[in-house]
Amino acid sequence: MRTIETFAVIGGDLRSAYLAGALAADGYRVITAGFDGTELPACVTACTNAAQAIALADCVILPLPVSTDGVNVNAPFSRVSIPLETVVQAVREDQLLFGGQISDAFRRELSLRGLTAADYFCREELAVLNAVPTAEGAIQLAMEELPITLAGSRCLITGYGRIGRVLARLLTALDASVTVAARRCSDRAWAQAQGCRSVEIDAVSRERYDVIFNTVPYKLFTREVLEGLDKSTLLIDLASRPGGVDFNAAAELRLKTIWALSLPGRVAPQSAGVIIKKTVLNMIKEEPEWNSK
Amino acid sequence: MRTIETFAVIGGDLRSAYLAGALAADGYRVITAGFDGTELPACVTACTNAAQAIALADCVILPLPVSTDGVNVNAPFSRVSIPLETVVQAVREDQLLFGGQISDAFRRELSLRGLTAADYFCREELAVLNAVPTAEGAIQLAMEELPITLAGSRCLITGYGRIGRVLARLLTALDASVTVAARRCSDRAWAQAQGCRSVEIDAVSRERYDVIFNTVPYKLFTREVLEGLDKSTLLIDLASRPGGVDFNAAAELRLKTIWALSLPGRVAPQSAGVIIKKTVLNMIKEEPEWNSK
Amino acid sequence: MRTIETFAVIGGDLRSAYLAGALAADGYRVITAGFDGTELPACVTACTNAAQAIALADCVILPLPVSTDGVNVNAPFSRVSIPLETVVQAVREDQLLFGGQISDAFRRELSLRGLTAADYFCREELAVLNAVPTAEGAIQLAMEELPITLAGSRCLITGYGRIGRVLARLLTALDASVTVAARRCSDRAWAQAQGCRSVEIDAVSRERYDVIFNTVPYKLFTREVLEGLDKSTLLIDLASRPGGVDFNAAAELRLKTIWALSLPGRVAPQSAGVIIKKTVLNMIKEEPEWNSK
Amino acid sequence: MRTIETFAVIGGDLRSAYLAGALAADGYRVITAGFDGTELPACVTACTNAAQAIALADCVILPLPVSTDGVNVNAPFSRVSIPLETVVQAVREDQLLFGGQISDAFRRELSLRGLTAADYFCREELAVLNAVPTAEGAIQLAMEELPITLAGSRCLITGYGRIGRVLARLLTALDASVTVAARRCSDRAWAQAQGCRSVEIDAVSRERYDVIFNTVPYKLFTREVLEGLDKSTLLIDLASRPGGVDFNAAAELRLKTIWALSLPGRVAPQSAGVIIKKTVLNMIKEEPEWNSK
Repeated sequence: MRTIETFAVIGGDLRSAYLAGALAADGYRVITAGFDGTELPACVTACTNAAQAIALADCVILPLPVSTDGVNVNAPFSRVSIPLETVVQAVREDQLLFGGQISDAFRRELSLRGLTAADYFCREELAVLNAVPTAEGAIQLAMEELPITLAGSRCLITGYGRIGRVLARLLTALDASVTVAARRCSDRAWAQAQGCRSVEIDAVSRERYDVIFNTVPYKLFTREVLEGLDKSTLLIDLASRPGGVDFNAAAELRLKTIWALSLPGRVAPQSAGVIIKKTVLNMIKEEPEWNSK
Repeated sequence: MRTIETFAVIGGDLRSAYLAGALAADGYRVITAGFDGTELPACVTACTNAAQAIALADCVILPLPVSTDGVNVNAPFSRVSIPLETVVQAVREDQLLFGGQISDAFRRELSLRGLTAADYFCREELAVLNAVPTAEGAIQLAMEELPITLAGSRCLITGYGRIGRVLARLLTALDASVTVAARRCSDRAWAQAQGCRSVEIDAVSRERYDVIFNTVPYKLFTREVLEGLDKSTLLIDLASRPGGVDFNAAAELRLKTIWALSLPGRVAPQSAGVIIKKTVLNMIKEEPEWNSK
Repeated sequence: MRTIETFAVIGGDLRSAYLAGALAADGYRVITAGFDGTELPACVTACTNAAQAIALADCVILPLPVSTDGVNVNAPFSRVSIPLETVVQAVREDQLLFGGQISDAFRRELSLRGLTAADYFCREELAVLNAVPTAEGAIQLAMEELPITLAGSRCLITGYGRIGRVLARLLTALDASVTVAARRCSDRAWAQAQGCRSVEIDAVSRERYDVIFNTVPYKLFTREVLEGLDKSTLLIDLASRPGGVDFNAAAELRLKTIWALSLPGRVAPQSAGVIIKKTVLNMIKEEPEWNSK
Repeated sequence: MRTIETFAVIGGDLRSAYLAGALAADGYRVITAGFDGTELPACVTACTNAAQAIALADCVILPLPVSTDGVNVNAPFSRVSIPLETVVQAVREDQLLFGGQISDAFRRELSLRGLTAADYFCREELAVLNAVPTAEGAIQLAMEELPITLAGSRCLITGYGRIGRVLARLLTALDASVTVAARRCSDRAWAQAQGCRSVEIDAVSRERYDVIFNTVPYKLFTREVLEGLDKSTLLIDLASRPGGVDFNAAAELRLKTIWALSLPGRVAPQSAGVIIKKTVLNMIKEEPEWNSK
């Protein structure tokens, strides 16, 4: 395991700001670039120049996603733009480089200079831990939109992966009556073993629910299925692009739908930053393994 | 037990609208007055004249509170005002009359005409059942304000009455680390028996919490106590008037505080309406008892 | 608050042995009498003579119950009997004296010599904290007797006092389907607010349950009610004497019944001992108050 | 999906008896052989001759395990032995044949006659659903052995597969303080996402626990690890053969250990029978798929 003393956190939203603070609280030296517009914890050193920040670090952490335009680092709190090219020029071979949702194009640029980057967004533990803020965010949305308490409400969760499992547990704990719809026998068995009712996935529109949380990333809620839903049902889509709902049809049918993307960064940026920190530290610990891949 | 066929629901906010709908769903005939500005369920008959609505009913339900100005029925969705005097004139001795937080003045007016009214807001079961939407509302506020997930957060609840108990249970279920501060040994024992940590009430400012929920209706959070809190602590006051926080001092100390009053009607008006329905039906069932008091 | 340095623990079952150990672990000097037959923690001093043990202490703790025969201290692990008279002779006015379920006769004997004793069994917090081992003991019995898992089982709890509340929470947490039968509206409201279904108490025999836990200390389960139960229903009576079940009728009807008395001492003597310790320490802290009564 | 009208349940322990009853309760005709020594539900037809029972059925269900000696069907409640050979001779090609833990030898015998059998013990959903009675059985054992309540106890679970996950959830729900030790980052993340503390697996002996539940099926608890444990720690091994504990070393060190095998059939035979029923019905529904494999 490599010894890291100094991290450079380059760009990013509030999650990256909290990531910087969390690393500093763990005793690391932390230098940031790209946070003019927000307050950072006292123990973090803000640097106006990304290249300089990188030069001082053993390990460089780029945001999630690394870039939204393919040209600059995703840095909403920065007054000046930070070109990806600047990063590519500044990073040295002896440094560790991390980023979230690294594009193939950026990887190619790096490899031209003999550099590699590790993507913390691909790590299983980040996805698992992010299921908690995602589930809490979904619960917050349901609480905000429903005229009833979740206690006693009839909730349907479609899909029983990471988010479905955590969400089912929290809703049950809040005294909701939770049904899980899943395609696979073993997923339905898991839902039962976790204390939930379970149904086959094509039973979705056969019963009335107060709120449906979709976690399945394909068009499960077609116009036909939507037509079968009660008009007072709230439909919260937690599936990543392309989502699981025909939103045009839903609008025409006057169904209340919410497509809730990227909840961790929005509802709990501090927790999301800490999750990135944990993941990056795990990766550093295992470095020889992932580096050799 | 008296047989009721027709209810008149006079005035009130969304809770009363949902109350009317819930009674109709139970099979009662329901006539309303004071809901021009909102949509009512199809099975409810809206009447433009309160006196007429009352005339047709076996049982009249006034809102919570009955009045906010002492002159008119509290009827925010009504285009015209409904004087309390109209109600007093219209109600007959053979009818049951219910209201929430009935004032002494209104009781006197009624008694001059030989009438009595029963206050559903005084009923223990209403207070107990309302603890659920109150606790959910408090959780929603905390989720909206905190940059972290409730899972893993350090929560303090001051007071362990109805709201404290339900809130402690739900927060624990959401994987928060919950401490209860209470004055009485037996309340602290209850908190422990419910799986929470407990401390004496004067220990409030000795530890760091991410969020404090106050349920004690006296000034527990004086300037001195507030000065001991961490600046990042969120303080949600659930205590009824006069509240438990010195809000001026809190503002000066730049502490984030929220005084969250009347949460059930705001966050879950439908559930709050159903709770009023259950309570009124319980009271009708027990009528000879409470009437004789 | 008086300063106590040395406790004498005189007689008692395993709870008293663990009480002695727990006090010693808190840093007190502890002397015991009446434990020849069991192993005590190293830090506790065993004394063969009760009078001598008492002489050395600031505070004397008698067992729960103090006596089973009215003559000797309840001391099942003692080779010799310890007469209550010995205690009365040995205790001094400057010492604090505690016991559980102190009889009037013993109180009179003490008062003849100008002594008083405080009963920790009367304390609310002891009863509340004991609800946890009682509920766990009831769950253990149900697990041992039922051919099904508690998860998914239909449980009825009659009564919603201390034990009913803790038991309802734990059974719900184990994914049982819990119904609470209670006489009072507000108790049924509490059960609902805790996430349980609730019914009126006379609905007991109208539905099928896999297991019924009775906590009501009067004959609720008469022959007539028992005749209405399914033959496969397990009935666990947690009510103190005289119990809530007509056991003769139950035997004739071949219903499986268990009268589970004094569970804390039987299923979790160490926890029960720690609960006595907490209660006695609370009482010492509040001493001027209870002494003046 | 094939239509089944009649099941033959041949041999087995209480689970098979309950399986027969559960199929009959679902409306199927059920014929059994091998249950002279136990009471069967009224709606089940007991047959003294296994071959005859098989002849009348569309689907034959053999027990779990099919055989313990390789010669006869595992039939502890049968007065006469039922040779496997009898089954092989009696089953026809048009019938479905199920069994649990089918041996290669028995498969060969069947295939000589052109027959195949499907093993319900291999099904994921059976393993998942069995995690519930296993976890409850483990909790029952801990309650029986520990002198303390699970509430407040320090529990360690080693491994975070099916049993570990369900057990962690139930123990947490009972207010235990649960730590999960797992090798993989993502399993530790799962434990955290489920509200548990997690540690690396080699941290097992660094802390004190009241009870350790092992679910890892290799010798994790070597003499060296056992030497690091506190003498009062209870160690319950839930791992299938060869188990995870050096039991000889544990005995020498006078550690309290329990090797708890086959809990579902022992603590909840009725639930275990229902789980087999669900699994077999799932398999029949999917038959063309598994048959073609």
